[in-house]
Amino acid sequence: MNLTILGCYAATPRTFTNPTSQVLEIRNRLFLIDCGEGTQVQLRKNKIKFSAINHIFISHLHGDHFYGLIGLISTFNLLNRNNDLTVYGPKGIQEIIKLQLKLSNSWPQYDLHFVELTSTESEIIFEDDKVIVKTIPLKHRVYTNGFLFQEKIKERKLNVNAVQNYEIETCYFQNIKSGKDITLEDGRVIPNSELTFDPEAPKSYAFCSDTMYNEEIIPIIKNVDVLYHETTFLESEVELAKKTMHSTAKEAARIALQANCKQLILGHYSTRYESIKLFKEEAQTIFENAVLGDDGKVFEL
Amino acid sequence: MNLTILGCYAATPRTFTNPTSQVLEIRNRLFLIDCGEGTQVQLRKNKIKFSAINHIFISHLHGDHFYGLIGLISTFNLLNRNNDLTVYGPKGIQEIIKLQLKLSNSWPQYDLHFVELTSTESEIIFEDDKVIVKTIPLKHRVYTNGFLFQEKIKERKLNVNAVQNYEIETCYFQNIKSGKDITLEDGRVIPNSELTFDPEAPKSYAFCSDTMYNEEIIPIIKNVDVLYHETTFLESEVELAKKTMHSTAKEAARIALQANCKQLILGHYSTRYESIKLFKEEAQTIFENAVLGDDGKVFEL
Repeated sequence: MNLTILGCYAATPRTFTNPTSQVLEIRNRLFLIDCGEGTQVQLRKNKIKFSAINHIFISHLHGDHFYGLIGLISTFNLLNRNNDLTVYGPKGIQEIIKLQLKLSNSWPQYDLHFVELTSTESEIIFEDDKVIVKTIPLKHRVYTNGFLFQEKIKERKLNVNAVQNYEIETCYFQNIKSGKDITLEDGRVIPNSELTFDPEAPKSYAFCSDTMYNEEIIPIIKNVDVLYHETTFLESEVELAKKTMHSTAKEAARIALQANCKQLILGHYSTRYESIKLFKEEAQTIFENAVLGDDGKVFEL
Repeated sequence: MNLTILGCYAATPRTFTNPTSQVLEIRNRLFLIDCGEGTQVQLRKNKIKFSAINHIFISHLHGDHFYGLIGLISTFNLLNRNNDLTVYGPKGIQEIIKLQLKLSNSWPQYDLHFVELTSTESEIIFEDDKVIVKTIPLKHRVYTNGFLFQEKIKERKLNVNAVQNYEIETCYFQNIKSGKDITLEDGRVIPNSELTFDPEAPKSYAFCSDTMYNEEIIPIIKNVDVLYHETTFLESEVELAKKTMHSTAKEAARIALQANCKQLILGHYSTRYESIKLFKEEAQTIFENAVLGDDGKVFEL
């Protein structure tokens, strides 16, 4: 699992900073999370293969999180994309995109699907054999969701020496890897624990932007490996954070601590501050393993 | 009058090339023409003052000409803009912008006006005391207009020596500058030509993108000082140009020649070619004063 930050600054695209967008690679799936203006250029700069993106998750309909979506959808078409694309986002996103495609008379050749979100409870919005994606209802000025990406529990690892010693045939291996005990021909029952090793623990990643400080998300993101949490402001601007329904670096750190996250990635910085290092310093007073997200940065999770 | 090319490449924004957008400064007015994705960043890079742009002209609703508009309108708001903004563009543009502003719950504080265009005849869409803007109906896959920007004829220049010799009082100067003859107290009539010099000739600029080769625009742009005409392809791809309703460099040059333009600026290049110099070489076989537009280039007209 790795995470590429394409953009993590608040409000507007600037010469050297980009609005929110990131790519999560998890079990060979590539998920695009948010899509601010200029995301397609950031994808090119970071050498992300356009055709590998089949799912786009949009947190909310503020411009710095989705104004690049229509351009990306159009570019996919110009590049003769064939595979389906599914966009998950707040109700209304379908109308915005379809209206523009209609008026530009450029409906894509590929199949474009929308999953419009309206629930204020966490729900599963994507699931396949390896990954599950749930919403994390956030509190912002418009309807907003974060997203929780979880690997499913992997198969148990075969203890090759053990199965050879018991002369177990290969046709039983799938049952063993899925956790079953084995009865030998002489009637002996061999417990699964003798035949397998524990698999690697499944990894999880939670994306939370934009949101005010909200303890209600803690049960949903409990024990995640990595939490990306917005930190638009420092604690010195806590009143402004409340007013605009954003978070301070301290608040993000408090969430990470209470949710027992292993790592906290900071982002969605206001450009009013001299250096983004200030966000890290402030967060680390509460949560030690806080790191700075930045445009172009890749995290191996 | 000067023209800043913010972007002049076809199809999609790339790492080092930008979709169509340009800024025309004419008699201290700043007009933004087209607004592809990333235009707001290009405005910053080229140090154009955001608040000086009060009129935006959109040629057509293909993404590479207007996907940056919603972001710019939103950024104007974040920058606490006060002055009115008027957007001129094809019918439908208002619906696209207003839908996004509604769903993001971020209606601008400043007054935002739309002038939606539907006519297939050239018409005046902007006029004040110094400048006039007319549409140039173009032929493309969707409803498209070019724009003709014309300075109005300036006042005649006062011949200071002559008016002093005749002892003409200053209260008559405005009449003289507007072209009137003067009757002196002794009854003599002094013709205006004795009292004034010719003003500088009014300048004009025509923007034509996107369009197939179309001789019908020639009477509209006749004798313009500078013509920007799209040249998506070279003549070797003339069939593709016809199919996609674009122009070749030779076709653009033929229009410039027949319209007796003083200068031709080329742009809207397909990125399939090795060098944009090829466009200039081809155009100059027909029209000598053909120059290459390029992102960040400024033309003093």
